[in-house]
Amino acid sequence: MNGAHALIHTLADAGVEVCFTNPGTSEMHFVAALDAEPRIRAVLALFEGVATGAADGYARMADKPAATLLHLGCGLGNGLANLHNARKGKVPVVNIVGDHATTHTRYDAQLQSDIETVARNVSPGFVRTAQSTAQLAQDTTDAIAAARGLPGQVATLILPADVSWGEGAAPCAPPPLPQPPAADSATLQTIAQHIRSGQATALLLGPQALRERGLLAAARIAAATGVRLLAEVFPTRMERGAGLPAVERIAYLAEMAGVQLAPLQHLVLVDAKSPVSFFAYPGKASDLVPPGCQVHTLATPAQDACASLEQLAALLGADTATPRLQTPQRPARPTGKLTAPKVCKAVGHLLPENAILIDEAITSGLMLGAMTQGGPRHDLITLTGGAIGQGLPNAVGAAIACPERPVIALIGDGTAMYTLQALWSMARENLNVTAIIFNNASYSVLNVELDRVGASAGGPKARAQLDLGGPQLNFAQLAQGMGVHAVRAQTAEDFCTALEYALAQPGPHLIEALVPEALAGAKRRLLPWLLKSLPGLPPAMAQALKRKIAP
Amino acid sequence: MNGAHALIHTLADAGVEVCFTNPGTSEMHFVAALDAEPRIRAVLALFEGVATGAADGYARMADKPAATLLHLGCGLGNGLANLHNARKGKVPVVNIVGDHATTHTRYDAQLQSDIETVARNVSPGFVRTAQSTAQLAQDTTDAIAAARGLPGQVATLILPADVSWGEGAAPCAPPPLPQPPAADSATLQTIAQHIRSGQATALLLGPQALRERGLLAAARIAAATGVRLLAEVFPTRMERGAGLPAVERIAYLAEMAGVQLAPLQHLVLVDAKSPVSFFAYPGKASDLVPPGCQVHTLATPAQDACASLEQLAALLGADTATPRLQTPQRPARPTGKLTAPKVCKAVGHLLPENAILIDEAITSGLMLGAMTQGGPRHDLITLTGGAIGQGLPNAVGAAIACPERPVIALIGDGTAMYTLQALWSMARENLNVTAIIFNNASYSVLNVELDRVGASAGGPKARAQLDLGGPQLNFAQLAQGMGVHAVRAQTAEDFCTALEYALAQPGPHLIEALVPEALAGAKRRLLPWLLKSLPGLPPAMAQALKRKIAP
Repeated sequence: MNGAHALIHTLADAGVEVCFTNPGTSEMHFVAALDAEPRIRAVLALFEGVATGAADGYARMADKPAATLLHLGCGLGNGLANLHNARKGKVPVVNIVGDHATTHTRYDAQLQSDIETVARNVSPGFVRTAQSTAQLAQDTTDAIAAARGLPGQVATLILPADVSWGEGAAPCAPPPLPQPPAADSATLQTIAQHIRSGQATALLLGPQALRERGLLAAARIAAATGVRLLAEVFPTRMERGAGLPAVERIAYLAEMAGVQLAPLQHLVLVDAKSPVSFFAYPGKASDLVPPGCQVHTLATPAQDACASLEQLAALLGADTATPRLQTPQRPARPTGKLTAPKVCKAVGHLLPENAILIDEAITSGLMLGAMTQGGPRHDLITLTGGAIGQGLPNAVGAAIACPERPVIALIGDGTAMYTLQALWSMARENLNVTAIIFNNASYSVLNVELDRVGASAGGPKARAQLDLGGPQLNFAQLAQGMGVHAVRAQTAEDFCTALEYALAQPGPHLIEALVPEALAGAKRRLLPWLLKSLPGLPPAMAQALKRKIAP
Repeated sequence: MNGAHALIHTLADAGVEVCFTNPGTSEMHFVAALDAEPRIRAVLALFEGVATGAADGYARMADKPAATLLHLGCGLGNGLANLHNARKGKVPVVNIVGDHATTHTRYDAQLQSDIETVARNVSPGFVRTAQSTAQLAQDTTDAIAAARGLPGQVATLILPADVSWGEGAAPCAPPPLPQPPAADSATLQTIAQHIRSGQATALLLGPQALRERGLLAAARIAAATGVRLLAEVFPTRMERGAGLPAVERIAYLAEMAGVQLAPLQHLVLVDAKSPVSFFAYPGKASDLVPPGCQVHTLATPAQDACASLEQLAALLGADTATPRLQTPQRPARPTGKLTAPKVCKAVGHLLPENAILIDEAITSGLMLGAMTQGGPRHDLITLTGGAIGQGLPNAVGAAIACPERPVIALIGDGTAMYTLQALWSMARENLNVTAIIFNNASYSVLNVELDRVGASAGGPKARAQLDLGGPQLNFAQLAQGMGVHAVRAQTAEDFCTALEYALAQPGPHLIEALVPEALAGAKRRLLPWLLKSLPGLPPAMAQALKRKIAP
């Protein structure tokens, strides 16, 4: 058996079911071996960023890794941004990068480059170049173990062509699943004591804790003790909707997050990172933890967050408390000229049962959370690493992981153009994805950021760098060119009709929402948006925010 | 003056005239500073791979670097493949990568990653993270000096946001241009002696030597001594056409290159790399130099190749020899059902004066060299690093460097989809580019490679990884969606009409050539192609090739 066959059988034995591919010559033996393993589905992408983003989206929904197949250092480079998003979301990916034959490397041929160097950026915990065919299956097992450890990670296995084509390999048994420990008793006692003290406390929930089991345990603690529940600003995957506890996400804008966090005396991290500003701004602090607030860690990403929450609940006598659950509630059907909030409203109005919502709408999606909070139960996937171009590839992977669930991806126009090739994979695999593109002809968020960083913003050259008009993109045509059914909508009525049609008809659909910029420039227009985007904000906080942001 | 202003003025003082941008928040001060420097043109790309590929194409034609502006490690990742192509082509690029403020890095925010790690892959000679505003202009000067040294390189300057927004900077004087030495006298004597010996010798010409001055010196040596002139398989930029010496390119397929090189006893490198196989294949040598052939270096990439050739010519008494120049000759206008060779024929038939030809057509472009060899003088740009997705971005840069020259880019369908966003920049800047996309609905070259690596290739899953049908892409629609005029052609007549129109009308045009696969699978069909693609191949070599490749 050659190396490629052993590798693929080892993946399948460990439960890896999908490989997202964009291969080249050095991967041809891997490609040829695919037909010998019926348990592995191969999904071709036209660009590596689609393959890696699909692997990310797949793992978020399947709770296990997919494999990728990339072509040398340049293919890895093309896939790097979405591997970065996976890394920041602690998402497992078995990232397989083909390389020249070991005998060929020293000739520095055209495609030769230092793959390990690039891989370390996204795979700090596991980068290995396979050295021999006999060892390859063990390398594969080690990569799988690393990827699906706790926390999950991108494990990069570099596969030289001759290791792949060499004979004498045999598959390797799958690695054991991780058995992470819960919080130790001293930690539980300390945190319980702070909560009992009655001082203002919030639990900040990360990936493991934003699933039903963790949410219920956290909500029981909240019901019994009055602690607040917060979610990380960009959750990897968050279960939400009617019947689940509602959790307030930390805001993207540091000004606003500061207001959310200001009252806290204790912040308890549950598989979460202490909150920091997304970017730095002149004269503003990066650390969002307010002065005097103590930060505690209930569970690190390497620990069992749900068990830790349940043990904390028991210790606090909260394990039989009744959690407060979101009541069902949908916004009305929007009408009139289409705007970004009306798109979010329409999604809330029509949200089907058990949907997967992918939010990469940047400024246009500010209302999405509020509009879907009381909708049917769904999963929300967000831009964990800030590297735009994640949403459409994530949709490919999520739809392959959950073929029976509708996937709705809300994407900004600027972000859509990074990995638009994902539409072709949706058409090829006939995936049930509805892609909603907000076309406002602008890198709208950068208009805000240009002001926020304090850069003088008057010049036409500067503004031109943020402007996507001239020519304005036509996403419906772009989608049709890749075989995806697509329409443009300029009224809320047309948008709702298009969304109903897309959700009713199998296969992929794209709806291009022609909308004005949500945040066209000035801070005075930003303010009402900020306030509306956190509808549960207590009046005192809203006042504080108004004082802080208003001109 | 803040850091960003000093950086941009320093670039302009050193003659940098264009910055290809895809900025984010951390680059907003750079963006805001653009309006203060009228000597710098900022060209927005929708994807970093377009920005870096445009900088590459620009420098190939302008003979000086452009700057890029990328957004942190993920933006650099997205731009890596085309920086790799620039690196392999020894093309100067001042690669500016924005980073978080130095004070923000330690918080490991969402977009934080190790930029230097990634940058080393493409900038082994110069990666620097600017540490202070006061020092930034000197850092810039150092980066420019590194980029435009000999050989040219990608110099990466990482620009933290606070270094950019900090005050107290001043521009720095431009660095001197490099003064590379020519070959030393002992080297010249040795090589002259081998040439005089009458043993079979070829000069292998790299970037510097493939321009008019180097070509003429080499052709004089050939005329006087009978040495053969060879060009690297993928030239960075090659001046060719009627009135210039014709040079035989080494073939991509190692089987064929082996036949070309077999007779040689001496191979003299002139700013060129000793030839190696593009990929490794089981049981085949990577080194293409035939046994017994001695390799000599007339000029390394750090030396002055043209002066070295001229001194060698003088030493050989060839400096007054009459070089053999290509006679004018055009193929007839093709007719009938469109095929890839007919597209190449049409390009040869209609090639305008002083065009820039960009060849990333992979299998479909095999006839391009033969069909344009006797056409009007032109420049040819090719895929130096093998990282596909270079051609359309290169066309953006070449058209900006040479606004008065027509740019014709021939691109395969698979390759076009990596960086198709380049079309939008062409429309936005109204560039005189004609993009010809060969739509054969296949990664055609991989069908050949699957056979060549000896992988058993029967299975439907394997073949599906190489197949771009289902759905077939519609490049005309894709182009229209980005504001580029586009047509589809299925007959040679329609194609010629479309090409004539595109060349006559300003601004960008896309012609989608619907063609059958040029190399659909079997070696017996590959052979006639190989033979035709080197029309000047002596009959004995053609026979040798036939014996080697025929089934």
